[in-house]
Formats: sequence, C-alpha cells, structure tokens
Amino acid sequence: MTDMAPVEIVEVGPRDGLQNEKVLFSTGDKLTMITRAIDAGVRRLEVASFVHPKRVPQMADAEDVVAGLPVRDDVTYIGLVLNKRGALRGLATRENTAAGKAAIDELGAVAIASDTFADRNQGQTSDESVAVSADIVRLARAEGMSAQVTLSAAFGCPFEGRVDPARVVDMAKRIAECDPREIALADTIGVGSPRRVGDLVAAVRDAVPHIPLRAHFHNTRGTGIANAWAAYRAGAVTLDASVGGLGGCPFAPKATGNIATEDLLYMLEESGVESGVSLDAMLDLAHWVEDRLGRPTPSALSQAGGFPTGAGDQSAA
Amino acid sequence: MTDMAPVEIVEVGPRDGLQNEKVLFSTGDKLTMITRAIDAGVRRLEVASFVHPKRVPQMADAEDVVAGLPVRDDVTYIGLVLNKRGALRGLATRENTAAGKAAIDELGAVAIASDTFADRNQGQTSDESVAVSADIVRLARAEGMSAQVTLSAAFGCPFEGRVDPARVVDMAKRIAECDPREIALADTIGVGSPRRVGDLVAAVRDAVPHIPLRAHFHNTRGTGIANAWAAYRAGAVTLDASVGGLGGCPFAPKATGNIATEDLLYMLEESGVESGVSLDAMLDLAHWVEDRLGRPTPSALSQAGGFPTGAGDQSAA
Repeated sequence: MTDMAPVEIVEVGPRDGLQNEKVLFSTGDKLTMITRAIDAGVRRLEVASFVHPKRVPQMADAEDVVAGLPVRDDVTYIGLVLNKRGALRGLATRENTAAGKAAIDELGAVAIASDTFADRNQGQTSDESVAVSADIVRLARAEGMSAQVTLSAAFGCPFEGRVDPARVVDMAKRIAECDPREIALADTIGVGSPRRVGDLVAAVRDAVPHIPLRAHFHNTRGTGIANAWAAYRAGAVTLDASVGGLGGCPFAPKATGNIATEDLLYMLEESGVESGVSLDAMLDLAHWVEDRLGRPTPSALSQAGGFPTGAGDQSAA
Repeated sequence: MTDMAPVEIVEVGPRDGLQNEKVLFSTGDKLTMITRAIDAGVRRLEVASFVHPKRVPQMADAEDVVAGLPVRDDVTYIGLVLNKRGALRGLATRENTAAGKAAIDELGAVAIASDTFADRNQGQTSDESVAVSADIVRLARAEGMSAQVTLSAAFGCPFEGRVDPARVVDMAKRIAECDPREIALADTIGVGSPRRVGDLVAAVRDAVPHIPLRAHFHNTRGTGIANAWAAYRAGAVTLDASVGGLGGCPFAPKATGNIATEDLLYMLEESGVESGVSLDAMLDLAHWVEDRLGRPTPSALSQAGGFPTGAGDQSAA
C-alpha cells in the first residue's frame, strides 16, 4: 500500500476543540497541548481565534498563547479571524518576533454558506461573509502574511437545513479571486455523508483547480471519519482534526465534536496514507487531555487503543 | 442522487448486540426489539444463536425467542450456529410451523480467519472452522434451509494481529464450493480501514463473483461507518448493524460495538442509498433500548438526532 498521496493534518484542538469547552484551559495548558502536538509531528495548527473575549472566553488569552508558542520555522500557526479587527490582532502578533517570540503565520477567515448561520455567528449575510473573508485575505497578503478561507456550514445549516452545493461552489469561485492559500470546506454541524462530501470536494476542485483544498469534519452523526476519507479520495490535501475529538457544540451537549486526531490517524495509517504525525504520541496527548478534563473524550482510539497486539478473548462475529 | 444500488440491512442487535450485554433482556424484550425492527422495515435479522447457554447466557432462550417471533413470509430469521449440534437446534425450530409459529429461516455459520481466535471461540483451527461451516451449509441445504457463512476476524485477530487478505480470499473460495446463500466478511474486533475493507471486498468479489457479499463492522476504532461505505462501494450488497450500536466486547468494556443501525441508515440516506428501513423508527427503537439499558448507547444518532431542522446557535467552523 504505497501508492497513496500523503495528507497534511491541521490540529484544531487548541481553537475549535477548546472554544466551547466548559473546563477552562490555562495558557500553559494550551501551550503544552500545542507543543506536544508539534513533538508528535504536527506542522500546522489553529492555535487561537482573535474574537471578542466575551463571546468566546476560552480564547481570551489568544495573544498570550501566541507569545508563548515554540519558535519554529517549520510549523505554521493559524489564527482564526472573523473581521478586520481580528485580522489586525493576528497581524500585530508579528511584533513578537523582534523580542524573539513566536507570531501568527497565517490568518484563517470564515465565510458561511447560509444567511441565518452567518447572521447568528458573525452578524453578516452569507454574501457579506464572503466579502469580509476576501478582504481579510487581501489585507493579509498586502502585509505579507499567508491567509486561507473556510466555507462553514458547507453541508448543512442548523437553521436552514441543507445547503445547495452550487452555492458553495459559487462561494469558492468568488473567494478564489483573492487568491487565498487554500479553501477549506467545513461540515460545521456534522451532517455530511461520504457521498455528498466526495461530490462537493470534487465540484469545488473542478471549479478552483489551482487552489489546495482542506476539509473539516465533526463526528456528530457518526460520519466524520467516513467523510474525511471521502474528502481525501476526492482530492482534499489537508484534513482538520482535534486531539481527543474535542469540540462539541454547546447547544447539543451530548454530541461529539471534531473528528479526533488519533481516530483520523488510525484510519489513515491503516489505509496506507502518511501524515508525518505519530499516532502513539497523539494518543498519549489525548489521554493527557482526558486528565485535564476529568472525563473521557469522544475519541474511539482513546478508549479502544490501536491495533491490538494480543489480549483478551472475544466471541466471534 | 438516484443512481445508487439499494442495500439490504441485517439487524444483528438481538444476537451480536445482546450477546455480551450485562443487562439481561427478557424473551419479551427481545421480541419487542425484533418486532419493532420489522415494523421499521427490516426484512432480515439475526434473532438468536444456538450455542451453549453457559457460554452465552443472554442467548439461553433462543428457542423461546424463535417460537415467539412474528410469522412473516417476507422476513428472514437467521440463527447463528457454530457446530452441528447448533445447526440441528436451528433446524428443529421448523417443528414450530405445525403449530402456526415462526421458525428459523436461515442458518448462519462462522469460519474464523486466525487459528488462535478459532481455538478460543470454538475450539477449532481456522481450517477446521472452514470445514465445519461448510458442513453446516451442506446440512442446511440437504434439509431445504438457506445458509450463509461469515468469515470472522477477516481484518485482524486480537491474538495474531493482522490477517493476510490472501488467506481470507482462500477461505471464501473453499466455502464457495458448498454454495452458501452468501459470504459475509466480519471485522469482528473493529480494526479495519476503508482502504483495506474496499480492497478485501473487491478481492473476494473477484474470487467468488457468483456469491452475494455481506459485511459486518464494529466501530471500536471509529472506522465502522467509513468501512461500511467502503464495503458497499466495493460491491457488498448487505450490511450488518445493531440498533443503538449494541455489542461491545466484554474484554474491552469502553469500546463501542457494532455499527449502529441508525448511524448506518443516516449515512446511507444522506448518500442516496435506499434500504427500505425507516431511520426515524430505528432511532425510536434505539431510545427504547437506552431505556431498557438505563444508559446511553454508543450510537451517534441517538445522541445528536437526524439532520437538524433548525435549533440552537453554534460557532462557525
């Protein structure tokens, strides 16, 4: 099994994983999580979002997290921003470098595929969110910083239900005009299926073939790993995941969150796809997260462990 | 999305789902579960196993369950058997019909892909389990009853680790000689990946193209739904699932069990694949199972519900 293209993993645990988590992670905890993920082989991470601390208290220490990051030329630190104010905060972290500290390497902007969700999340229409995200990319580019755009609710909206794939393709075309580093398709509420995911990734790839595609899945309805595989097979070159599967929705408390990094790594390794990230090291980190949370995570691997090497009797079939 | 072949669902909750469950389900509870699954549209079920009651106490009432089943010409009741004694018990249920009661319609035999697992599970070598399962098929056929064979541990063994796909293909070829109704590939311990599953289903299909293929997955390492999709895409026409995702391994208590019927149905429906089974009705049944267990099941849908129609705020991406 050597003919599979490698895939890049973006660890989103420190941002999407934690932003709705009730247990407050200290700046030191976040830096431990990030450093251990890097030690495990992760080379691209969402480390913070630059949003109003009242809206997302877990991200209130964004600047402190960035200033404490390991200084690494070979790692890309992404800061999520929803507007110009956030973009300027992300850009301002570059002042750290004069003091020998780390900075944000890339801005992550968000455009939302449905009007209602765009309004609830960032007080915009869907079209406005496309324009704002394109402005963020242009601002970053003018300042010499990398930037990408995530199309949120690309497979469904909690308020409007299904999202027309043609709408998402059209958004991708419009955003491509500002030449982002990549476009990501996010199944924000975990409603996707492998067929819809494969079809949409292929359609966006056809529409903007010069832009690398990334995909972001939640395992809310059990399809997250299937969707990740479908996205990879359809041409996504980067997949998001969150250690331990952190990232449940605050309004659906029992729903699981992002696909777990260790579950994704297991599936990829067993499919012959290289990511450069150590499954064992991420599994150890998931257990550290469980200790910090004081509860099990939704990750399957953190419960079951990897490929068994021989233990226990089991009934057949 | 109308170009997808339909798929047959085998509900295995009453057998594989319950066999390791600590909460003892009464005969009446099992019949409620089975009847409600039929009402939801399921047309093939594993209703019992004919094994020694000391080994599997939850199956001690196999004959009573069968005698209490709805009499339905359009439903296939499968009884799992591991040896001739079990096969004779399954065949003997046909005496019920004189009294207007239901009987087993089909024997399910098991051949195991690794020697250690075959020894622990049924005191045989792998080759012996192939011979015994072929004998069971021949016995059933001689008595005018349908029979199929499941190849267990087809993707990995808890004692021996990885299983050579060539071995499984060879087993399928040998079993095909007795002309079973179908051959099933079972990822008994939940180690498969979509690539390995797709490759093995395709290889077996090529080796025994005249025999319908069925696939059986556990979600122990989060890949169950991805594997089900891969099997379907590679040509499996029947998929097993267990309502609520019942069926955890008694020696890995936190591991999840069979893929949940409702999770499988969600993925299939959202991929445009018809099964004839109502997702809503199976979701209701999963909640009934949760009431009986007094705890949540591992099913994703039973926690999150189906495609949202509009409720709750969520942060984007």
